[in-house]
Amino acid sequence: MINKLVSRIRKMNAPIVVGLDPMMKYVPEYIKKAAFTEFGETLEGAAEAVWQYNKGIVDAISDLVPAVKPQIAMYEQFGIPGLAAFKKTVDYCKEKELVVIGDIKRGDIGSTSEAYAVGHLGRVQVGSNTFCGFDEDFVTVNPYLGSDGVNPFIKVCKEEKKGIFVLVKTSNPSSGEFQDRLVDGRPLYEIVGEKVAEWGEECMGDTYSYVGAVVGATYPEQGKVLRRIMPKAFILVPGYGAQGGKGADLVHFFNEDGLGAVINSSRGIIAAYQQERYGQYGEKNYAEASRAAVLDMKEDIAQALALR
Amino acid sequence: MINKLVSRIRKMNAPIVVGLDPMMKYVPEYIKKAAFTEFGETLEGAAEAVWQYNKGIVDAISDLVPAVKPQIAMYEQFGIPGLAAFKKTVDYCKEKELVVIGDIKRGDIGSTSEAYAVGHLGRVQVGSNTFCGFDEDFVTVNPYLGSDGVNPFIKVCKEEKKGIFVLVKTSNPSSGEFQDRLVDGRPLYEIVGEKVAEWGEECMGDTYSYVGAVVGATYPEQGKVLRRIMPKAFILVPGYGAQGGKGADLVHFFNEDGLGAVINSSRGIIAAYQQERYGQYGEKNYAEASRAAVLDMKEDIAQALALR
Repeated sequence: MINKLVSRIRKMNAPIVVGLDPMMKYVPEYIKKAAFTEFGETLEGAAEAVWQYNKGIVDAISDLVPAVKPQIAMYEQFGIPGLAAFKKTVDYCKEKELVVIGDIKRGDIGSTSEAYAVGHLGRVQVGSNTFCGFDEDFVTVNPYLGSDGVNPFIKVCKEEKKGIFVLVKTSNPSSGEFQDRLVDGRPLYEIVGEKVAEWGEECMGDTYSYVGAVVGATYPEQGKVLRRIMPKAFILVPGYGAQGGKGADLVHFFNEDGLGAVINSSRGIIAAYQQERYGQYGEKNYAEASRAAVLDMKEDIAQALALR
Repeated sequence: MINKLVSRIRKMNAPIVVGLDPMMKYVPEYIKKAAFTEFGETLEGAAEAVWQYNKGIVDAISDLVPAVKPQIAMYEQFGIPGLAAFKKTVDYCKEKELVVIGDIKRGDIGSTSEAYAVGHLGRVQVGSNTFCGFDEDFVTVNPYLGSDGVNPFIKVCKEEKKGIFVLVKTSNPSSGEFQDRLVDGRPLYEIVGEKVAEWGEECMGDTYSYVGAVVGATYPEQGKVLRRIMPKAFILVPGYGAQGGKGADLVHFFNEDGLGAVINSSRGIIAAYQQERYGQYGEKNYAEASRAAVLDMKEDIAQALALR
């Protein structure tokens, strides 16, 4: 799957992933109204609104970007109907040939981590049959529990040719509280980065590993160091746009081959129509606004990479 | 909810939580057969088997223990039908007056962490209505992302009078890879423990905080130190029994008042009938075997506490 991600990034010339994090306040009123008319102001109604909203965006951008990253929390908040909308979104994006990165940030130990891996990336055995629970292509994984938590994901990745992105240095302001603590004079995120490189050695695609890392766009200096520590890891970079990361900050996350990073934008793309810059589209044309925002983001990153 | 947990522990004289982590290999054949006959060897069939298995155990132990801890990964592996069985289990346990600790180990940032908190502990707004997605009483939270990840849970805990257990020192063999790294000469888990104490100060129940911690039974010496660092935090202690933790190891997790810790056992209770010790019950009486195992565990812990 890392090979597919790399080849789609090359083909589209866009190291971009669109975060499908549908907060209700982003969903246009007319979509909510239609969904509530059909299902009432219920969890089912909310799930339908989220799904229709996603579908519009996916239809508008699927020829421009290699990958999407649905954030499961935004669906899980609506309980079972919300998670059904998550699954529907994953399936639809895969039909459209998009690489799907499930932003699930799971992490547990042993058989429990294996259950998450099986449910999201693999197949679960039921009697003599096997089934895919959610079937994303990649998922994000929290490393706090150590190798016991990550290895079960790697095992399933090897079987299914899928991949993970391990949280190394997250984009939020307080990420330093624990991640930046100095261990033998070096921040913890570097130690985690070294483990990512080690875990990744045993499951290589053609040029990059199936084990990638998450490093926030808001920390470009740290990105530079981590790029060196994990040369074969693809870096998933959140925090571009709404969280403050700029195109020029991103160059350090890439390797000399122009690859090695995929930049995520969520709100900046999916709620583009709410920004002044794309206000002319109006909520009826929210999906076209998203398309315009993707094109601008592509240009911003291409310029930054050309200037380095 | 921490007050309810404390009062139920006192009333039942049992600082015990039963982990409802239903692996298919624990579920008696006759239950699987009935479920597969009704729903086929499908995700729905697996979910039905898990639910019926849980129900038997809950009916057999609900008068003996204050709390249960369903591990969501074991349900999530069966996709949407599995998560529906999780929800059914949560609801049923609450009907039985059990305190329900959702072992979800979620953790993200800002609005995303808030979505998890709302979905599992709070209410989500849909139009003019509000709904509970999963509605556990407590959940477990991963601290790797720092305060940005934990504060949204605390906000919802304050509103709903619910609680969290933050992962501090986990029970698995590799937990030391990152958690034991020395920061200014002290292991990282102590730094996390200090933050738990700090987060907990702002949401106190009568004697304990709504913000608790997870510390593995397999690390009793670390438990002793953490008990001192977080005097007002309830400690959820996994790793008793199957993972190697013994009653005598547990005394350090308790305060002088005999409270402050709740010991989890999963496999040791729910799959007791598969152990030689409870073999005489047979799979038909698996729930009675679980009841016997709870009584033995209660005795083991009471003896250890009496001897200290």
